[in-house]
Amino acid sequence: MTEPDDLPSLWSHEPHVELRFRPGDRVADIDADATPGFRGDKSDAPTLQAERNVRFAELQEMLYANSRSGDTRSVLLVLQGMDTAGKGGIVKHVVGGCNPQGVQYRSFGKPTAEELAHHYLWRIRKALPSAGHIGVFDRSHYEDVLIVRVHNLVPPEVWEPRYDEINAFERELVDGGTTLVKVAMFVSLDEQKKRLAERLERPDKYWKYNPGDIDERLKWPAYQEAYQAMLDRTSTDHAPWHIVPCNRKWYSRLAITELMIEALKGLNMAWPPPDFDVAAEKKRLASA
Amino acid sequence: MTEPDDLPSLWSHEPHVELRFRPGDRVADIDADATPGFRGDKSDAPTLQAERNVRFAELQEMLYANSRSGDTRSVLLVLQGMDTAGKGGIVKHVVGGCNPQGVQYRSFGKPTAEELAHHYLWRIRKALPSAGHIGVFDRSHYEDVLIVRVHNLVPPEVWEPRYDEINAFERELVDGGTTLVKVAMFVSLDEQKKRLAERLERPDKYWKYNPGDIDERLKWPAYQEAYQAMLDRTSTDHAPWHIVPCNRKWYSRLAITELMIEALKGLNMAWPPPDFDVAAEKKRLASA
Repeated sequence: MTEPDDLPSLWSHEPHVELRFRPGDRVADIDADATPGFRGDKSDAPTLQAERNVRFAELQEMLYANSRSGDTRSVLLVLQGMDTAGKGGIVKHVVGGCNPQGVQYRSFGKPTAEELAHHYLWRIRKALPSAGHIGVFDRSHYEDVLIVRVHNLVPPEVWEPRYDEINAFERELVDGGTTLVKVAMFVSLDEQKKRLAERLERPDKYWKYNPGDIDERLKWPAYQEAYQAMLDRTSTDHAPWHIVPCNRKWYSRLAITELMIEALKGLNMAWPPPDFDVAAEKKRLASA
Repeated sequence: MTEPDDLPSLWSHEPHVELRFRPGDRVADIDADATPGFRGDKSDAPTLQAERNVRFAELQEMLYANSRSGDTRSVLLVLQGMDTAGKGGIVKHVVGGCNPQGVQYRSFGKPTAEELAHHYLWRIRKALPSAGHIGVFDRSHYEDVLIVRVHNLVPPEVWEPRYDEINAFERELVDGGTTLVKVAMFVSLDEQKKRLAERLERPDKYWKYNPGDIDERLKWPAYQEAYQAMLDRTSTDHAPWHIVPCNRKWYSRLAITELMIEALKGLNMAWPPPDFDVAAEKKRLASA
């Protein structure tokens, strides 16, 4: 099986190009309502999402299959975004379309005492995807230049060198065969308010609400600044950032699915050839 | 939200009762074509499977949500079966319906040198699901009384005590809050031949084929004996085995989905109450 050049026609521009962070792009200018590159609308989303999940799952299976024949490559999806941007929805509706066999999910919350006793990349390194797997980071090492910077959890002379350090770390990952798909998810302040309010209205959503979310919300300008620095300083050729507007969940899910499909297609895979004699095995099986 | 007593009417008998191993049940008598307890047929399966996956996912989310409030319970699905029985299909089509956030999958192949240097339960203990998660074992500690016994990888005086040891180990898991769902999947020799043949016909299936599968196939009688001993000696009140006929994939998927739903319902969960003042938070949010 070869990979067709199969971007659905509802996309007027390739998401991995259209959404890629470009030097000079300003966080303050992002329109979280926008649907860049997509010419369809919400009514197109359910069918298209289902179709593209199948394509994503097929490519993921091929990645996994190749690892059984010694291919050590992997793909790592890095999701960053403010509360309610929809990281959980991406995990559920996009990653959830793949076979759990080939997915390694990890969320990074407040570091434990043990994690704090180590370098901030220690817990990250332990969670990197193994060969043939799709790793998913729900938050990531970027927390160490976002919340840590905004809350002054360490002084500037500690977080400042981290941008370069992260670039070197990711260079190492890429050289080791991991394709990074870095996604910065942006929701507007208004939309965030709506989503937080919903969590306070529905008893089946209370568990997703954390009073601390409002504290973070109040620091929006500081976060914008920290996100801007993150994008400016860690969007590299080997591991670029993508900016995904997330006020329309259906759009962000479609877009991130395409980013993953594109990353997998970039591996130029085929189904691995048999490492046994097919004719001989057929004969053995016939008489077994 | 409460849990409705919601077994679909297409089931004439509850799968967790109907499929439960009973002392005296003989592996040699299992009809792998059967669909015990189900009065529908294949044409009913797609719609029903989709509906029940939603129910399964909802209960899984509730388990996860409760763990955020300190509930440490978990559920562990243990899948055992001969090659081609459909373990991978259960992972893909049943477990795949859940949010990857709450699932911890692990397959157990041939032990590594490091694993062999430890007690056989060492690698198992490392892979147990954490609080609020659904663990999935694709093969398990039972390999140590199946392939190990059939191939005489260790002498009888080593594997013989393992049955009791496993019962004690699982007792410990259950006491610690883990519900075990143990599923023995049975495919007939004829159906296995068909499925292996298919893997030899399709280039996208070669990677699933292993010449060793035929060697195992030729040891079917010895495996039947080992499975019989496993069921006789490790189907306990705290962790019973279920026998699932697997010639009809649609049936085995429906059945195992119901076993998981039943296990989750048995936890008598509700959505966790808020650990904050809802009215006060609404007020804070309004002005944030």
